[in-house]
Amino acid sequence: MTANKYSVLNTRVHNVDGYAKVTGRATYTFDVKLPGMLYGKILRSPHPHARIISIDPTEALKLPGVRAVVTGKDTLGVKQGIWRRYPELCDEQILTIEKVRYIGEPVAAVAAITEEIAEQALDLIDVQYEVLPFVDDPMEAIKKEAPMIHEGVERNVNVTRHIEWGDVEEAFEEAEYVREDWFKLGGQAHMCMETRATVASYTSDKKLTVYTSTQSPYYHQALLAGVLGLRESDIRVIAHYVGGGFGGKFELDASQFCASVLSMKLSKPVKIVFTREEDFIATKRRTPMYYYVRTGVKKDGTFCARETRVFTNGGAYTGMGATALYLTGFFHSFPYKWKAYRYDGYRVYTNSLPSSSMRGFGAPQAMFCSEQQIDWIAADLGLDIIEIRRKNAHTTGYEVPGQATIGSCGLNQCLDRIEQWIKAKGTLPKNRAIGISAAGFMTGGIFNWFDSPYSFSSAVVTINYDGVVELHVGAQDIGQGSNTTLAMICAEALGVKLENIKVHSGDTDHCPADLGAWGSRQTLMAGNATKMAAEDAKKQLLEFASAKFGYNIIYDLDIKDNWVHNVARPERGMNYVDLVKEALRGKDGQRIIGRGHYTPHRKGMISPAYSYMVQAVEAEIDVETGKLSIINCTTAHDCGQPINTLGLIGQLEGAASMAAGYGYLENMPVEDGKVMNPNLVDYKIIRAPDMPECEIIEIDTYEPEGPYGAKEAGEGLTNPTAAALGNAIFHATGLQMKQAPIMSEMIVNAFKEKKKEGGTR
Amino acid sequence: MTANKYSVLNTRVHNVDGYAKVTGRATYTFDVKLPGMLYGKILRSPHPHARIISIDPTEALKLPGVRAVVTGKDTLGVKQGIWRRYPELCDEQILTIEKVRYIGEPVAAVAAITEEIAEQALDLIDVQYEVLPFVDDPMEAIKKEAPMIHEGVERNVNVTRHIEWGDVEEAFEEAEYVREDWFKLGGQAHMCMETRATVASYTSDKKLTVYTSTQSPYYHQALLAGVLGLRESDIRVIAHYVGGGFGGKFELDASQFCASVLSMKLSKPVKIVFTREEDFIATKRRTPMYYYVRTGVKKDGTFCARETRVFTNGGAYTGMGATALYLTGFFHSFPYKWKAYRYDGYRVYTNSLPSSSMRGFGAPQAMFCSEQQIDWIAADLGLDIIEIRRKNAHTTGYEVPGQATIGSCGLNQCLDRIEQWIKAKGTLPKNRAIGISAAGFMTGGIFNWFDSPYSFSSAVVTINYDGVVELHVGAQDIGQGSNTTLAMICAEALGVKLENIKVHSGDTDHCPADLGAWGSRQTLMAGNATKMAAEDAKKQLLEFASAKFGYNIIYDLDIKDNWVHNVARPERGMNYVDLVKEALRGKDGQRIIGRGHYTPHRKGMISPAYSYMVQAVEAEIDVETGKLSIINCTTAHDCGQPINTLGLIGQLEGAASMAAGYGYLENMPVEDGKVMNPNLVDYKIIRAPDMPECEIIEIDTYEPEGPYGAKEAGEGLTNPTAAALGNAIFHATGLQMKQAPIMSEMIVNAFKEKKKEGGTR
Repeated sequence: MTANKYSVLNTRVHNVDGYAKVTGRATYTFDVKLPGMLYGKILRSPHPHARIISIDPTEALKLPGVRAVVTGKDTLGVKQGIWRRYPELCDEQILTIEKVRYIGEPVAAVAAITEEIAEQALDLIDVQYEVLPFVDDPMEAIKKEAPMIHEGVERNVNVTRHIEWGDVEEAFEEAEYVREDWFKLGGQAHMCMETRATVASYTSDKKLTVYTSTQSPYYHQALLAGVLGLRESDIRVIAHYVGGGFGGKFELDASQFCASVLSMKLSKPVKIVFTREEDFIATKRRTPMYYYVRTGVKKDGTFCARETRVFTNGGAYTGMGATALYLTGFFHSFPYKWKAYRYDGYRVYTNSLPSSSMRGFGAPQAMFCSEQQIDWIAADLGLDIIEIRRKNAHTTGYEVPGQATIGSCGLNQCLDRIEQWIKAKGTLPKNRAIGISAAGFMTGGIFNWFDSPYSFSSAVVTINYDGVVELHVGAQDIGQGSNTTLAMICAEALGVKLENIKVHSGDTDHCPADLGAWGSRQTLMAGNATKMAAEDAKKQLLEFASAKFGYNIIYDLDIKDNWVHNVARPERGMNYVDLVKEALRGKDGQRIIGRGHYTPHRKGMISPAYSYMVQAVEAEIDVETGKLSIINCTTAHDCGQPINTLGLIGQLEGAASMAAGYGYLENMPVEDGKVMNPNLVDYKIIRAPDMPECEIIEIDTYEPEGPYGAKEAGEGLTNPTAAALGNAIFHATGLQMKQAPIMSEMIVNAFKEKKKEGGTR
Repeated sequence: MTANKYSVLNTRVHNVDGYAKVTGRATYTFDVKLPGMLYGKILRSPHPHARIISIDPTEALKLPGVRAVVTGKDTLGVKQGIWRRYPELCDEQILTIEKVRYIGEPVAAVAAITEEIAEQALDLIDVQYEVLPFVDDPMEAIKKEAPMIHEGVERNVNVTRHIEWGDVEEAFEEAEYVREDWFKLGGQAHMCMETRATVASYTSDKKLTVYTSTQSPYYHQALLAGVLGLRESDIRVIAHYVGGGFGGKFELDASQFCASVLSMKLSKPVKIVFTREEDFIATKRRTPMYYYVRTGVKKDGTFCARETRVFTNGGAYTGMGATALYLTGFFHSFPYKWKAYRYDGYRVYTNSLPSSSMRGFGAPQAMFCSEQQIDWIAADLGLDIIEIRRKNAHTTGYEVPGQATIGSCGLNQCLDRIEQWIKAKGTLPKNRAIGISAAGFMTGGIFNWFDSPYSFSSAVVTINYDGVVELHVGAQDIGQGSNTTLAMICAEALGVKLENIKVHSGDTDHCPADLGAWGSRQTLMAGNATKMAAEDAKKQLLEFASAKFGYNIIYDLDIKDNWVHNVARPERGMNYVDLVKEALRGKDGQRIIGRGHYTPHRKGMISPAYSYMVQAVEAEIDVETGKLSIINCTTAHDCGQPINTLGLIGQLEGAASMAAGYGYLENMPVEDGKVMNPNLVDYKIIRAPDMPECEIIEIDTYEPEGPYGAKEAGEGLTNPTAAALGNAIFHATGLQMKQAPIMSEMIVNAFKEKKKEGGTR
């Protein structure tokens, strides 16, 4: 290990909000209690598709303690969505007025003096429905005769996306081997520790304060303004602590909308906290997809052409699903160079809960198909699984035609290190094998479907008299540790110790606007804004040092570890806090304020930077029961320059856990439009004892667009794991698993099928 | 009434936080509830002077539900005070260690799971005292043989102040008439609607959050840092709503200190709310004083010389009392030109509750003596009470030698208008008369005893996309409406409507430092900072308008009422919000931020500006019972340019009420060191039905140092009322009342005395 050239970065740091969290002092939305606060509950549709004839709240309103019942008719009826720039994709009213389109869709909300009374009142609301035929599978929904879910949307096709480069037909002609497969990918619940929760407090001067569990306070401020007819700045969104998001908490949810509508009706604070069941059936989920993949290669493994068609189960509304449709197509080409590539994606409305963004954002589905097919091709052609990937791998400077330029890429180093690791493992026991999968991922999204007028990220650095820095950012810490990462970047850039930094986020009244925590954007985007703000402040400080020491130009001086010094003679200098005091005097008592912002310009279509990784999964298969055991997840990960190495490990392990869950455990069956296992008994996730050993091999590259060379970590690793597990099964058993999650019964059935075909390994 | 040249200023505006307050949504410290919060209670000394032998908490700690008992020995024992620049005046430990010096002084504090248990536990703490001789009157305490209250402080003289100009002896020689009187002035309770209250929440990473009722979050941040050994910026003080201060809430109080110490010991949030009794006996009070006044005048009423000696009952500790000692001497010369003036003040420690700042800050005492004596002199010399004042009145540009320069003065207009008003009244019924008193007051203090490194006031203006302004100020709204005043100044300066402004104050993490709400400083100081910040932002905005419209220089353009326009041709222009949107695009999505600050430089010793007023009190005296009834308080008030005329009236009426209470109702007897009436049955204040009619005659002057010409309003008017009441009694009955408050029994006794002397009216 080489010496760390940084003072703060690339060290192991506990989260800055760790004390508050481990001592129970962190106030999540659930903990917010306001004087006179009421409790809200939501009545939900029992039908996957039905017309609302009438809603009669009379009996509910008679229940003592009930204060109000609201339906869609009490609202402005605005059809909203996060694709604000494309009105046709804004299709969800939250409290629906004419029709319900999925089981669990909100039809009314109650406010009462206790949660129990509100719950009882739900049963007393009389809703008359005209039940309509429904469809919950995209391959059925796209048929001509299928029920029409949204008026005027023919064949229920919500969004289509097309990506193409090169001459696909010609490239297939050049190919010496062509293979095609169909895959089926399931949904996955975000499964945040904290369910959706909101306390809305409205006063009749048209000001609304909303405490909520959100990945993006700014989005929710703007989205609520749109649906409530309020001015954006008159809504204050507060999210001091958030218990996980994973892509599910930046669209408007029913806790936010219904609590706000009730609060506006009553001019009282109203709290709505989703039960775990509500969180399962009526928030959103990872998008289920049907994937057709046709790939043509040379006999030496050179990739020629790929053609992909995807039909996604969009569920009842668009939400972030439109972006997932684009990204799954884009990442399906990753992390390889294709002479020609064609992707056609169809997002299809169905009568099931809406599908949306979730950690990985379409890429886990893409990788599951692509990376397994590559191993099958390699097997068919007798090629080495590392070699075939190395031959086609992205490299620094590569341009994904018309889409992206790769500023840094450590994929080949990842492949090398995983190859060494596998070799070191030697021969494995029977029914055990290692599967690998490569992947790449974005570091923040460039697409501005929200049409934000603000910089993508902003930061303000204010230096107090005692040298402490108030760092205000709009970036949102949802448990991933962004406050810590940004504090470290600020400390490094300013040249001070981490203990000098206080981070403020999660409050639209005090923090600059930022698009929030999604698409792995905050380290790079808010990090760049923070670095710029800190450097701005530092420059102002150094003016005073320069005046004092009399050197020629300002750049002769620097600050490091709270020591202001001449770079050439570091022993000459002064304490940082003393300089702050002098500067404050010079500025007539005004604190130094530095500002920074970041918006990507001319960085392609998708993202300013891409991370790369190769994951190896060692798995054991019980051939009798089909039971899968993951023994080890080892990842070589190119995340550029690591910031907080402890946080990095936490993110990567968390991603591996979620991704492995997606691979073999987290099944979300929907029958007749109904999620069959909306509880933590029947929905399985990886618990601590189930967690395999994880090893991280850091591949440090330098990403020119990232702060100090940093790029994505923690979301990208959600992408390869399921595919690597599939490949481990393939190498252990010869089975080709084309459906995720890979359930034990599928393996048992696959063995049976194989026996029927007379095949043995 | 001439047309208002302003769009926002000089209009009647309801407070910006009015909705939150009238709907009960405003969360005062009392309303703060944190998870796991404990309740604290304070054990107080029953002795006016005693040595603490031992404190044994054993039995208290056995009481179920008790979590901790702390004494002074659990603290750093720092002797603190708000005169931070003068360590010898920092004499109070809050939790005393060796001695108690007044009844009610904190000796221990308990934290328990309920307030009731904490209260019970107090009785179980065993404190052994060695009772010492005590003294509770300054004239006794200053004697050689008096008990020494603070080690080494000879004759208990805490502070002395001397003010002198001119040749006093010579000027007395020139005088044709000399009169001397002794006066005695009582204490007065601040009587805030909200008693002292704090919730302190400490986590073991050495971060402390303090919700508290304060006039100055910044002072309390700094004071707590000093006594707790924490870094200033690691303490966050939050005071979103405060129910009154009146000068009593900017020193460190026991709720703040004890809650913090208990929270640090337990790492749990601790809440302490004072009972009304505690607020009476163990906070602070208006300083009782003995006043000797010798005045020499010419026969035509020209003032020659005044010599004054004051002995104040300082109580057990210094606090803000040292400033009150200076200011009473300074204002005793007000609002007149004296050829020679000499003041000697002695603040004397006694074994009673400490005396401190209170609305008027020494001036009500000074005026009570000065303004009555002037009427008595006028009567003796056969001069008109208006004329004698007019002859000697301050005028614009006058220099109080070595102390102050008067930038604006409407005193003569005040006198003229009150003269007219009195004449219009005609003959009054028997036993009814009008008394008048003139006064002047400061508009913010220049003296920096706190040694703040920050600007006296600061403001940050941030403009959102929708044109709404986030105005961050450190000024504190304690019910006086400063948030509204500052919002109006911001709106006027930026040229937008008031509804475009959101004010943020009362949070040291987010708001710039400011000395807070005392000395009538915020309208001028925070107002100037706000105006500067708004103008800074406006200038940045107009750059874009200038670029767009192509005029020669930026000053061709202005904004008014949300309309950006060419000043010469106002119809040419654009909407303000549209300009904001364009500017935001031009700035790559960065919001415009304007900054402003204010620190007085070269504005004399006391204040950058002075308000003037003349108050007439029409009172009726029941000669049998001595009962006083105030029929009418009419005030001609020069406050410079009014900002919020509705707020101005509220402030003036509130001041008149408090001042009238000081004049005849609010008696605070102390016997054997004990406050005899610490409750709202026995301590009388003016209630709504007691409130006399108030008339306000606005004298609009322009104060060059104030924002838009504004200066003090609402504190100054606390000064003349008691004197005017005394003068009304004098004119109705011939009685010369030399003690405040003027209680009915004093009048009855004075009549008796007069009869004895054979005098009749």
